[in-house]
Amino acid sequence: MYPGLVESLARENTTKIVLLVLDGIGGVQSGPNSLTELQQAHKPNLDALAKKSICGLMNPIAPGITPGSGPAHFSLFGYDPVESLIGRGVLEAAGIGMEITHRDVATRINFATIGADGKITDRRAGRISSEECERLCRKLQANIDLSKGVQVIIKPVKEHRAMVVLRGDGLSGEISDTDPQAEGLEPLPARGENPKAEKAAQLFNEVILQAKKILSDEPKANFIMMRGFAGAKAYSSLKERFKLNAYAVANYPMYRGVAGLIGMKLHPVTKDVKTEFEALKEVYNDYDYFFLHVKYTDSRGEDGQYYEKIKVIEEVDTYIPMITALNPDVIAVTGDHSTPTALASHSWHPVPVMIHAKNCRFDTVQTFDEIACIQGGLGIINSLNLMPILLANAGRLLKFGA
Amino acid sequence: MYPGLVESLARENTTKIVLLVLDGIGGVQSGPNSLTELQQAHKPNLDALAKKSICGLMNPIAPGITPGSGPAHFSLFGYDPVESLIGRGVLEAAGIGMEITHRDVATRINFATIGADGKITDRRAGRISSEECERLCRKLQANIDLSKGVQVIIKPVKEHRAMVVLRGDGLSGEISDTDPQAEGLEPLPARGENPKAEKAAQLFNEVILQAKKILSDEPKANFIMMRGFAGAKAYSSLKERFKLNAYAVANYPMYRGVAGLIGMKLHPVTKDVKTEFEALKEVYNDYDYFFLHVKYTDSRGEDGQYYEKIKVIEEVDTYIPMITALNPDVIAVTGDHSTPTALASHSWHPVPVMIHAKNCRFDTVQTFDEIACIQGGLGIINSLNLMPILLANAGRLLKFGA
Repeated sequence: MYPGLVESLARENTTKIVLLVLDGIGGVQSGPNSLTELQQAHKPNLDALAKKSICGLMNPIAPGITPGSGPAHFSLFGYDPVESLIGRGVLEAAGIGMEITHRDVATRINFATIGADGKITDRRAGRISSEECERLCRKLQANIDLSKGVQVIIKPVKEHRAMVVLRGDGLSGEISDTDPQAEGLEPLPARGENPKAEKAAQLFNEVILQAKKILSDEPKANFIMMRGFAGAKAYSSLKERFKLNAYAVANYPMYRGVAGLIGMKLHPVTKDVKTEFEALKEVYNDYDYFFLHVKYTDSRGEDGQYYEKIKVIEEVDTYIPMITALNPDVIAVTGDHSTPTALASHSWHPVPVMIHAKNCRFDTVQTFDEIACIQGGLGIINSLNLMPILLANAGRLLKFGA
Repeated sequence: MYPGLVESLARENTTKIVLLVLDGIGGVQSGPNSLTELQQAHKPNLDALAKKSICGLMNPIAPGITPGSGPAHFSLFGYDPVESLIGRGVLEAAGIGMEITHRDVATRINFATIGADGKITDRRAGRISSEECERLCRKLQANIDLSKGVQVIIKPVKEHRAMVVLRGDGLSGEISDTDPQAEGLEPLPARGENPKAEKAAQLFNEVILQAKKILSDEPKANFIMMRGFAGAKAYSSLKERFKLNAYAVANYPMYRGVAGLIGMKLHPVTKDVKTEFEALKEVYNDYDYFFLHVKYTDSRGEDGQYYEKIKVIEEVDTYIPMITALNPDVIAVTGDHSTPTALASHSWHPVPVMIHAKNCRFDTVQTFDEIACIQGGLGIINSLNLMPILLANAGRLLKFGA
């Protein structure tokens, strides 16, 4: 890759690009027929699109590397995933609509139950409701006072999950988690991983101390644990880099976070997958790059539920005509990474990808799956190359040199 | 790529490498049968060679990037195309045999017709003959005087096209075109794109001013317009880098320019494609790397003439035995980039490539076309990797390490 080359060639035009990301879509052979979930699924619309597409496989980061969803998405959007790396804290804070500044350090928190002996008895405080979480966050926000020129911002996410952001000068996010990751253990103190991060670590410990007092009258959620500390980072937007007016339809904080950090307009959270696809039509005229994110292929992969993952694929397949009916100049379908149900976790396996466009130079691939795509015309690329190829197919890159 | 690695391993021997470049050869599916031009063409000799070759596809610069012919050729010759980038002015000046020094700034010029109102009425001065062009260049050369220690050199190219080179100290080529690119508009002044280039820009404006007076008695070619300003750059030669005595058979200035800048001996311009192939035999004993360039695959691609592009392919096919009869140690056939007739322009699609050599490890590809080559043993490589592979097949690279 040549840094800055694609950016220097990017130009605006009126074309539309739709990127459908089926999170964790890649699998490995399993089930009674020794087929991947994509091979086993009945998906006539995806297969029909594959016949008119150029297909291939993509490594999200590099061969053999299993990525988290954050870096995997940065790469899909044309941002170097290693350079762009930031903690989940910032991603999720951005994802719930918190505006993160360069003076901020963010962390995810769990409301938890702690015993009189100082050991964690429930890491999720009995999975309290989202309403409870909102009430607890208000209670903390009203009572915590750091009084050192540092502002504390506390926002609920969902159920037992919330965010804490510290805003002030000289804060740094290289801090170790306080969540001991198992019940029956004592929580850990926040520790700076370098001297620069010590100030923020001590402030977070002060937040935990005050929170413990403030929550002492709560029956279940009487403690908070922190993980995924992260300082903010400045990103150039898709508009600045690739001259794209980008729109994101994604329902989970992490993905909204990445999209928001690089300047995509975020669609309100929708109630299900179908309404995500329906959202596309509403805003289709106002943007030119659409990121449409489906979470459940990954969730069912993580659960190890082979047939449930197939069901998600089959459901998505029925919505594909909602995209093709809009007749975008470029349609790309892929995943951020593989989540094979056989592994019940993210994996390093390259993900299948197909790109349909007027002059895509389609290949002989007849079905959209990991094995068929090996024969595709894209070969095996890095997902960082996806954006330039989409821009090229959309006529959005000028010629390099004479 | 490891910079300098290939160079450190290159050695001389008596092998011969022939690189046949069919400019813009790559296409996309079009025509009545939805086939690429290469798929549709009858080309028994190329296909026979493919059966005995290792095949694949090449990205000239990087995935998604559409290259100009200059950078695309640098990459074919093993020179980083982004580092090597120079303006068309220098390439074409070198291509018509002007010796370009590091004190030079070159630009292409068009003889044009300008009206009394200062607007361009014909950007090509009625496509004057090449003889007229020569006369006009002599007239300008005899009368333009910059008298500031800066020398001006004016050479005809073809029809309305010529070159102007300024030679002097402190000249820089980052100058904007004066050609407004449309008739009915006034020509633009040459403007330095940075303060360093201001001196040269003003000198070129002076050339234009004097030329307007000198040409004022001409009925058609009464003005000149400039585009593609470029300063010179020093390149190491193919001999220095890869120990190759290289010979170029190419009829168009741009390609002669690149070849000349990296030290290839240039064959005189021949009258057609057949005579280009014939030239090979004449000089075969005296060199070891032969660059044979066919322009018309690109020209017909740019014209959007599907069947005309196929005709060029079919003509070239009949000349392939002239190469194989010489029995070179390595034969490579490829393009610098794709120029699909469906796009009528250069494109980002990778180009097919085949390499025939005694130990090339041929694959299962049976025909030389974009789709068949997907299954080739080379996979999809960057064309910067072509040179090392050719050298390896020619036994011209030593082992790396013990």
